[in-house]
Amino acid sequence: MEDAMTTTEAGATAPSETVAETSPHETHEPTTHGYHKQKDEHLKRLRRIEGQIRGLQRMVDEDVYCIDILTQVSASTKALQSFALQLLEEHLRHCVADAAVKGGAEIDAKVEEATKAIGRLLRT
Amino acid sequence: MEDAMTTTEAGATAPSETVAETSPHETHEPTTHGYHKQKDEHLKRLRRIEGQIRGLQRMVDEDVYCIDILTQVSASTKALQSFALQLLEEHLRHCVADAAVKGGAEIDAKVEEATKAIGRLLRT
Amino acid sequence: MEDAMTTTEAGATAPSETVAETSPHETHEPTTHGYHKQKDEHLKRLRRIEGQIRGLQRMVDEDVYCIDILTQVSASTKALQSFALQLLEEHLRHCVADAAVKGGAEIDAKVEEATKAIGRLLRT
Amino acid sequence: MEDAMTTTEAGATAPSETVAETSPHETHEPTTHGYHKQKDEHLKRLRRIEGQIRGLQRMVDEDVYCIDILTQVSASTKALQSFALQLLEEHLRHCVADAAVKGGAEIDAKVEEATKAIGRLLRT
Repeated sequence: MEDAMTTTEAGATAPSETVAETSPHETHEPTTHGYHKQKDEHLKRLRRIEGQIRGLQRMVDEDVYCIDILTQVSASTKALQSFALQLLEEHLRHCVADAAVKGGAEIDAKVEEATKAIGRLLRT
Repeated sequence: MEDAMTTTEAGATAPSETVAETSPHETHEPTTHGYHKQKDEHLKRLRRIEGQIRGLQRMVDEDVYCIDILTQVSASTKALQSFALQLLEEHLRHCVADAAVKGGAEIDAKVEEATKAIGRLLRT
Repeated sequence: MEDAMTTTEAGATAPSETVAETSPHETHEPTTHGYHKQKDEHLKRLRRIEGQIRGLQRMVDEDVYCIDILTQVSASTKALQSFALQLLEEHLRHCVADAAVKGGAEIDAKVEEATKAIGRLLRT
Repeated sequence: MEDAMTTTEAGATAPSETVAETSPHETHEPTTHGYHKQKDEHLKRLRRIEGQIRGLQRMVDEDVYCIDILTQVSASTKALQSFALQLLEEHLRHCVADAAVKGGAEIDAKVEEATKAIGRLLRT
């Protein structure tokens, strides 16, 4: 998945549609994902992280001292983790809570799925 | 620094000079940083991570399911950590080892500096 | 290595009061915490981790090679994270889901609290 | 809480052989591992962590609220990482620096080995 994404994404022209204020998707078919309302905030955060990654490229290109690059890597990783936490919070508040209210077996599946996602974040 | 970087970087046209095959810097003033030789490989990795971050923006924009976004965040964090590890390895092999060979007090400073950088990576 | 250590360590001298089958607490006032049912499993895991930490002391005491000690630290940290994840899963399945079913403002507080706990785990 | 736990836990019942002031090993064959001088400090830290793990067992046994247990797990994980960092610093200062001074191929092997150990810590 990583590779597929790379080939698709690394092309220079990619980002224009990513930041479209209103995607067609959004207009006809409002989704119920937890993070829906904070979409703009999420996109802003991710564009900032993208800027940090480009900053890293410039640092490498300009032969900046290794330790300073590592400091910037730590900042970017922290920013990614922080984005993940916010997304997770909304997911728990909406998707997981909805499953609990509905009752039935779905809550177990949702909780297991969320726990696995947290495990992946912890192991990175 | 994060903010400064963002304002500078988030503009769409930024990356062209970052990927220049031969920066002027490189031609007249060969640096001695450990990662010098692997520069192209590092830039390639970072551009792939940049593509992953753009992929995340598209996922948010297209209302992809939260858990799938979290999986992609984990992949990007892992890729950043893996870049950091490689940089660190070259730093230990060159800068830290050179300080050891030179003798004197520099080795202590270098080791302390490297350990702090590792601590920042561990805490992210 | 973890297993060998466990068999050696989790043995007869483990603090006897910790494993009391029925604590007075448990008999009159059944708690509703999510992890209640898996208590024995949790205690077993924690005693194994305690054995690993004692193994680390012995390694330091016997001047074992640093890298081998670090490998054992990684194993213990992983075991602690894995215990945390299991506890978290039960917490989400019980406490958070219960708050969702009850309705009202409690779900928000519970989700925020859980997210903060996850953030602390991520930052360690 | 950590301190209270330590005073309570690191007490008289701690495994007597682990803290033997002079292990036979130490007397005839002084090792050259980097952490040798800080041995007492390391053992003290590890006994404190052992106390934290026993504190966790007591918390589970007494049905303490899940989130409070998770907070204590985070503290223990952080203490383990911090012990690992100190060990690593001494390893870099002694073993890795010595290999650099000796020259030859050993430095590459030592750096690779240290980097792998850091990678394992990062992934836990």
